[in-house]
Amino acid sequence: MPELRLHPDRLFPGDPATRTMARELYEAVAGLPIISPHGHCDPAWFADNVPFPNPAELLIKPDHYVFRMLHSAGVPLEELGLPSSDGTPSEADPRVVWRQFAERYHLFRGTPSRLWLDWVFAEVFGLEQRLTADVADAYYDAIEAALTTPAFRPRALFERFNIEVLATTESPLDPLEHHAAIAKSGWSGRVITAFRPDNVLDPDQPDFRADLARLGEITGEDALSYKGYLRALENRRAFFREAGATSTDHGHPTAATFDLEPDEAERLFARVTRGAGTLTPADAEVFRGHMLMQMARMSLDDGMVMQIHPGVTRNHDAATLRRFGRDKGADVPTATEYVQALKPLLNRYGADPRLTLIVFTLDETSYSRELAPLAGFYPAMKLGPPWWFHDSPEGMRRFREQATETAGFYNTVGFNDDTRAFLSIPARHDVARRMDCGFLARLVVEHRLELDEAHQLARGLAYDFAKAAYKL
Amino acid sequence: MPELRLHPDRLFPGDPATRTMARELYEAVAGLPIISPHGHCDPAWFADNVPFPNPAELLIKPDHYVFRMLHSAGVPLEELGLPSSDGTPSEADPRVVWRQFAERYHLFRGTPSRLWLDWVFAEVFGLEQRLTADVADAYYDAIEAALTTPAFRPRALFERFNIEVLATTESPLDPLEHHAAIAKSGWSGRVITAFRPDNVLDPDQPDFRADLARLGEITGEDALSYKGYLRALENRRAFFREAGATSTDHGHPTAATFDLEPDEAERLFARVTRGAGTLTPADAEVFRGHMLMQMARMSLDDGMVMQIHPGVTRNHDAATLRRFGRDKGADVPTATEYVQALKPLLNRYGADPRLTLIVFTLDETSYSRELAPLAGFYPAMKLGPPWWFHDSPEGMRRFREQATETAGFYNTVGFNDDTRAFLSIPARHDVARRMDCGFLARLVVEHRLELDEAHQLARGLAYDFAKAAYKL
Amino acid sequence: MPELRLHPDRLFPGDPATRTMARELYEAVAGLPIISPHGHCDPAWFADNVPFPNPAELLIKPDHYVFRMLHSAGVPLEELGLPSSDGTPSEADPRVVWRQFAERYHLFRGTPSRLWLDWVFAEVFGLEQRLTADVADAYYDAIEAALTTPAFRPRALFERFNIEVLATTESPLDPLEHHAAIAKSGWSGRVITAFRPDNVLDPDQPDFRADLARLGEITGEDALSYKGYLRALENRRAFFREAGATSTDHGHPTAATFDLEPDEAERLFARVTRGAGTLTPADAEVFRGHMLMQMARMSLDDGMVMQIHPGVTRNHDAATLRRFGRDKGADVPTATEYVQALKPLLNRYGADPRLTLIVFTLDETSYSRELAPLAGFYPAMKLGPPWWFHDSPEGMRRFREQATETAGFYNTVGFNDDTRAFLSIPARHDVARRMDCGFLARLVVEHRLELDEAHQLARGLAYDFAKAAYKL
Repeated sequence: MPELRLHPDRLFPGDPATRTMARELYEAVAGLPIISPHGHCDPAWFADNVPFPNPAELLIKPDHYVFRMLHSAGVPLEELGLPSSDGTPSEADPRVVWRQFAERYHLFRGTPSRLWLDWVFAEVFGLEQRLTADVADAYYDAIEAALTTPAFRPRALFERFNIEVLATTESPLDPLEHHAAIAKSGWSGRVITAFRPDNVLDPDQPDFRADLARLGEITGEDALSYKGYLRALENRRAFFREAGATSTDHGHPTAATFDLEPDEAERLFARVTRGAGTLTPADAEVFRGHMLMQMARMSLDDGMVMQIHPGVTRNHDAATLRRFGRDKGADVPTATEYVQALKPLLNRYGADPRLTLIVFTLDETSYSRELAPLAGFYPAMKLGPPWWFHDSPEGMRRFREQATETAGFYNTVGFNDDTRAFLSIPARHDVARRMDCGFLARLVVEHRLELDEAHQLARGLAYDFAKAAYKL
Repeated sequence: MPELRLHPDRLFPGDPATRTMARELYEAVAGLPIISPHGHCDPAWFADNVPFPNPAELLIKPDHYVFRMLHSAGVPLEELGLPSSDGTPSEADPRVVWRQFAERYHLFRGTPSRLWLDWVFAEVFGLEQRLTADVADAYYDAIEAALTTPAFRPRALFERFNIEVLATTESPLDPLEHHAAIAKSGWSGRVITAFRPDNVLDPDQPDFRADLARLGEITGEDALSYKGYLRALENRRAFFREAGATSTDHGHPTAATFDLEPDEAERLFARVTRGAGTLTPADAEVFRGHMLMQMARMSLDDGMVMQIHPGVTRNHDAATLRRFGRDKGADVPTATEYVQALKPLLNRYGADPRLTLIVFTLDETSYSRELAPLAGFYPAMKLGPPWWFHDSPEGMRRFREQATETAGFYNTVGFNDDTRAFLSIPARHDVARRMDCGFLARLVVEHRLELDEAHQLARGLAYDFAKAAYKL
Repeated sequence: MPELRLHPDRLFPGDPATRTMARELYEAVAGLPIISPHGHCDPAWFADNVPFPNPAELLIKPDHYVFRMLHSAGVPLEELGLPSSDGTPSEADPRVVWRQFAERYHLFRGTPSRLWLDWVFAEVFGLEQRLTADVADAYYDAIEAALTTPAFRPRALFERFNIEVLATTESPLDPLEHHAAIAKSGWSGRVITAFRPDNVLDPDQPDFRADLARLGEITGEDALSYKGYLRALENRRAFFREAGATSTDHGHPTAATFDLEPDEAERLFARVTRGAGTLTPADAEVFRGHMLMQMARMSLDDGMVMQIHPGVTRNHDAATLRRFGRDKGADVPTATEYVQALKPLLNRYGADPRLTLIVFTLDETSYSRELAPLAGFYPAMKLGPPWWFHDSPEGMRRFREQATETAGFYNTVGFNDDTRAFLSIPARHDVARRMDCGFLARLVVEHRLELDEAHQLARGLAYDFAKAAYKL
């Protein structure tokens, strides 16, 4: 039976001098609290604090990194227990799902999922053998047993993980009742929301018009008139602010922004609300871009940090979308342009000290060519950490190597885990801290940075920068 | 006289711990037989088994990596003995051609050609001095003398190189008589063909209509009717299957695929066969993309593995094309989009267990952004190894670093040498094995992978994965 | 007080064997004279040889790398003493400007500016403490005092820096009186010009028509007729040649070249000179591309080496342009295509032994995909070194790793400092020498290159290649 080991030097460069330096830097930041300013955990976990159901429900079914890879190896999603909407029967036994996963755990070699999962197995559940088909059931039993104990309830894990603040992400239509319940409960964990209005800013979203109607109902505004719509958004932003939100988040297909005159915007809004029949793809693009500009304008007033995450072709596989719905691992990045796209917004608000704009990318070519030069000039703009497919050791290394020389470290904002896989949060932050310390160690060993500076930066990247950038 | 040395640790990382680990991994795979599932050797070599003519004919004139670089340094192609079609006299003395090369061997410093050629000189011919102008004639004499001996005939070298299977590439119009001759000869070497139908799928190919007519003649089908054309292709695929082919290969300008209705396809085919005058570039693109879809459909039935190699601007230099023809080193990659391009094919067949689709790229930006995410989701899709300009130590390193974290190792297919430079085949596989072991060694040293797993993967990347993916 | 140290091993890889090798290679080239074939120093400095005014005027106000980063951290450009054109008062006290910089020197951690500036502080001015707010005034005083002494006058520094030749860059309208003054002065320093005709080749330049008129006056040609315009350009090229120029430099938005028939060109020129109202963006693009072709044609006759630097969106921030003018750090690279763009020029002149075409990029994706394959085929084409945002340790490493395997070393041209920050010139060349030696050392340690070859190449990259490519 192969042993499961988390080596204390994992992810540090192999060269002994650099490794020693990385270890020294890491030791000083390894224990810092976790700032998680951007993620997708379910706030109900912390409101209700009921036990997580079982290993498959906890670790496989919500993790698109995991089921995506199993799917690529030929395991149909229904065999992983994902519920279908077309009547395909879905595997109901979580233990069978778990075995499908365990038998194929070798597929994750060389991926960050392997690092995160091994950490969860070893650190959270105390497992001592590497996951293989042979120990699938033993794993299942051990995890299932642990989940029934108080120490594995959501709040207990939150505390054990030393999370200082955790942001979830909600639609403007969300009543935020879980956040309210957490606040009322007297529990000291800080779980805040973030304002994610894609569904009411993007006319291409399937329920756009219905969601606008609902937005109007919630706010008492006429959200089908342009001015009422803007007031309704301001109203919801204020509501989110009260529930602790310090940021907005925008997952648009492109980074396009547009600076429309008010009457032009009003005419476009009228076309947008008349519905899909009269709307061209360009109209939708301009409207989304105009609304990013409006979001920036509102941020000047309410101080919410603005995040843009563009450049994904969502739901690439039509059959998967039809049968299993969105967010099933079939999203694929595309080449993304930032220089012309962000020009209207940066020209209008990029030097305004009231705005913080954090930009993410899935197109790594933009790090050195577009994003670092933009962030290295505009005071409002900062670079988000490597994201989604690039939230990995090599991805993090490329980000630091390609962005730092032009943007510096101080135009970056630390780490985001961006995950709904709650148990992996400490592992993800730990990977980022180790990789950043490895990068800084190289700079020290190559005499490009002094040790005292590297210590300051290691702490900044692990804790201070995120806390400051997200105003936490 | 500088010595020619092939250091046993060549290409391994310099850090002692990583190097030791790389050496250990490499030693276990260095002697595995060569699986060469994609290449461009001439099957006549193995059918006829006559001696290779002379050093220039063997090592310079067929190797576009070599004459391209000499051309870039100002040596006209005619001085390298390449035959011209415009009456320019071409250097007839192979020894003079060899000297041109030897005098400029320093140009190859830092390139993979240098690694491959040094291996051929040292390992195949036993030469002990580094190639310079001073030893040009001594090299020439030694190689020429060796080539006259039985041990240097094609079949003897094939056996000495420990090649388990070698795939060549032929047009559907090829009678495959050399493969038949090999089969009849009783020689045990396995030389198979691959089905490369670009000339009869791409209306922009110069002899497209003539080749269609010929396709009809060979198969007894009316290849100028759409249905007859499809039957003719199926017919030739079956013929290739009988000659051992397990794969098709498609070198299109883009990765575009299209899913046309049958009647739409039939109308387009009618326009296509009426000829260039009535055909727009978009028509040609749609037709090629539609035929990739047809090729995938046929693969479901006959099990042939499908390979797509897009993204080259062929024959960039008009004068070179006019004077020396195609494949003269003037092909240049261009930015290539995969996400929208492959969507029709992947949406239709990407989850079909009967299809294996291997995708290559010359645009390295697509590794992490497009190809790894696609291969990491669709069961049918695998990533081809770094290809052509990127079939090099740094190119291989970038591929592993950029593709592995999202696609894993198991969505890749091992190494292809893709070469017509027969003598370099073992050197190319050796470079790949060394680089892959170096990459795996780093993962082990950084505690991202256990040693037993690295051993399995080293073997997979060197031998098992190619054999399985190409159904050999 | 933290110490300011320039470690003798700085920028060398951490692995001991590679570091030892890098050091050995570097020691042999560290003292070679500086060839600076492309830069933006003011020739008046060497003509007049008056003292540099003060630390802020010398090190901050002319250095867009420096004020761009301070601006990104929220320091308005007027507080850095940059003169505005809209009446905004600008900080007049250079010591106050200096303190703004010193207080924020940590922003430059991890950037090449930090390396260059530390070198200037330690080597040029002998400062022994790291720059922080605490020593801002001590720095200011020490630098200001040094600048009043003869050893810190421009010519003395030029000699101390061991500059063999320094090229400045001038418009065709420049009378080159400073170069004439230098020549007449009897001073032995070689300061030559380079021909940068963007203002009279690019119809989108703001003063295009006025500059054409001025070109006509200077040359006595009718520069508003096409033939007179070409003669005027030839005339100025000859004038620049006499003042020592060996190269032309072209900073176009794209790399597009066009091969127009003479009458077509003449008609386009007529439209171009009628002015902006009748000219489309496509017309301007075609005209610029046609004029690159004309520049290449003229280079065949006069032997001037041709440089193309495409791919920047200039003046991205409209407010900064309006208030402070051009070149204020708000230039941002964009994706740049070379394969189709350069085809006309390379098809016509790419094999002409009279032409040297040096191509630069700000889009690093083109290194391996487009530029190395083109330079690895066309005799005329060479790759310029990593430029502007990529003129940095990691940028240089990526260039060598991505370009060398296809283009080789011998299709590259050594280093360009491309700077107007005169004091940083030795530091920039030193960074390039160290990084190139580090790269070569890795090749030697990995047994991909022999030591004698690495020594030759180290010298080539540091000195010989630039001297030869620029015909110096």
